[in-house]
Amino acid sequence: MAEQAFVTLATNDNYAKGAMVLARSLRNHHTTRKLVVLTGPQVADPCQSVLKKLYDEVRVVDLLDSGDTAHLAMMKRPDLGVTFTKLHCWTLTHYSKCVFMDADTLVVSNIDELFDREELSAAPDPGWPDCFNTGVFVFRPSLETYDKLLQYSAEHGSFDGGDQGVLNGFFSSWSMTDISKHLPFIYNLSSIAIYTYLPAFKQYGGNAKVIHFLGQTKPWSLTFDPEARKIRGGSQDAEASHSSFVLDWWTLYSREVLPLLQEHYGDQPFHSG
Amino acid sequence: MAEQAFVTLATNDNYAKGAMVLARSLRNHHTTRKLVVLTGPQVADPCQSVLKKLYDEVRVVDLLDSGDTAHLAMMKRPDLGVTFTKLHCWTLTHYSKCVFMDADTLVVSNIDELFDREELSAAPDPGWPDCFNTGVFVFRPSLETYDKLLQYSAEHGSFDGGDQGVLNGFFSSWSMTDISKHLPFIYNLSSIAIYTYLPAFKQYGGNAKVIHFLGQTKPWSLTFDPEARKIRGGSQDAEASHSSFVLDWWTLYSREVLPLLQEHYGDQPFHSG
Ligand SMILES: O=c1ccn([C@@H]2O[C@H](COP(=O)(O)OP(=O)(O)O)[C@@H](O)[C@H]2O)c(=O)[nH]1
Ligand SMILES: O=c1ccn([C@@H]2O[C@H](COP(=O)(O)OP(=O)(O)O)[C@@H](O)[C@H]2O)c(=O)[nH]1
Ligand SMILES: [Mn+2]
Ligand SMILES: [Mn+2]
Repeated sequence: MAEQAFVTLATNDNYAKGAMVLARSLRNHHTTRKLVVLTGPQVADPCQSVLKKLYDEVRVVDLLDSGDTAHLAMMKRPDLGVTFTKLHCWTLTHYSKCVFMDADTLVVSNIDELFDREELSAAPDPGWPDCFNTGVFVFRPSLETYDKLLQYSAEHGSFDGGDQGVLNGFFSSWSMTDISKHLPFIYNLSSIAIYTYLPAFKQYGGNAKVIHFLGQTKPWSLTFDPEARKIRGGSQDAEASHSSFVLDWWTLYSREVLPLLQEHYGDQPFHSG
Repeated sequence: MAEQAFVTLATNDNYAKGAMVLARSLRNHHTTRKLVVLTGPQVADPCQSVLKKLYDEVRVVDLLDSGDTAHLAMMKRPDLGVTFTKLHCWTLTHYSKCVFMDADTLVVSNIDELFDREELSAAPDPGWPDCFNTGVFVFRPSLETYDKLLQYSAEHGSFDGGDQGVLNGFFSSWSMTDISKHLPFIYNLSSIAIYTYLPAFKQYGGNAKVIHFLGQTKPWSLTFDPEARKIRGGSQDAEASHSSFVLDWWTLYSREVLPLLQEHYGDQPFHSG
């Protein structure tokens, strides 16, 4: 049986930091699967080196020198740049099955059981729950599917301008067909859900397996106070729950990622976060 | 075959207005099913009379003189007052199957096909999408189920303090078991979803069948300007979509409900909204 892998994407140095924390969180929870990161040519060399330490495979994806379908699709829809890069995960055909995870996710429990699921399995999106959220999904690499996806995006575009619109358009029967393809929400717990329905979070959030820092504010864009070991900002009830996950992210980042970055950046200018 | 019915609940005059609009929206879209409203003793007589005009059955539910289980359950959990009243819909055993609808919902298309579904069918809640939203659900009246529900609520309470917490606790396998019990989100389109994921609303919202004015601000608590035929307030993009549904609600209210209320209130003091 071919191997299986967790796959993420980081096209710049900030998302690369996310990918580094994600890799550490997967390893700390003892995954037995391979770790793969797709990066873009903009990611700085020292970051690439750290990614190489943390991932089994670092694949630089440059759509400009990709095969015909990819190139043509991108010419037709230049607005879908990062989206096309994400779709690239379907080309990883040396793996039999993969779980894609956004670089802004954090694993808080072993999730290897996700590989029992079939393509396309994903959790509902809070907001419009008949759409799945593309921050965590199970898929089967296949060049045939990859080509179809590119053609679909070039023809139909994306209703939300990103990969979520494309993938929901393509896998359009998700909400109606097979309950086993509905991942429990705790595998993609968007931090936004904590605010919108706090009682449900209090009831079910204790079983969280993956936290997704969806939206504008990413952990790496917040300020962390290493002395006080806390995030600069308020301390409302919901905000505190959210912050506790951000704090987990920062703890992992400063303990297990920052030292590697400092090592690889050496004397070069480098911003810790 | 016993008959089938749409059922709603209105324990005070404001929610009664919602129930009146709901009934008109169901009739205007040519439902072939019966309409039932559960009311409380606080609903004013003229309102009760108008409800009698619009509904096939108006049932005054007073838990204080209910059977033993109901009474005991309520003594144990006085905080769950309105919730217990909603659960009362399971006692409507002269119907073979029912669809419960919150009084703050508006039907914009015939939805009789919902009676093809089984108990308990409901749409996901935006916010925590592994919970179903209890604004629209298909159920089978049964005194046995009713007693079990009361016992469950008395023992476990409600994680959110309302009927949604109780029903999700009781029908706890909803998110994992049977896709046919997942109603499409367009059967319970919470106005909140328009704001959180506008592109999805623009893509799928055109097929809306039921609008749910979930949350603090209800249509009847907004101010309507009958001259300009618009709601007083801003006109952002998302807000405008939302407002257009509020406007639909008000149009129905002022054309088809207000005249009935004025007739029944006669010379008594009465607030139009
Ligand atoms: O400039 C970008 C934007 C996004 N991404 C990748 O695409 C995912 C989806 O974007 P994001 O998480 O920002 O979207 P959200 O989850 O907030 O909707 C990220 O997690 C990254 O893996 C990236 O590599 N570079
Ligand atoms: O004082 C109340 C509160 C609620 N309800 C009924 O219970 C439903 C649920 O409450 P609401 O719609 O206010 O909750 P939301 O949908 O905003 O969570 C209402 O639509 C009504 O049918 C009622 O009759 N009286
Ligand atoms: Mn993300
Ligand atoms: Mn409601």
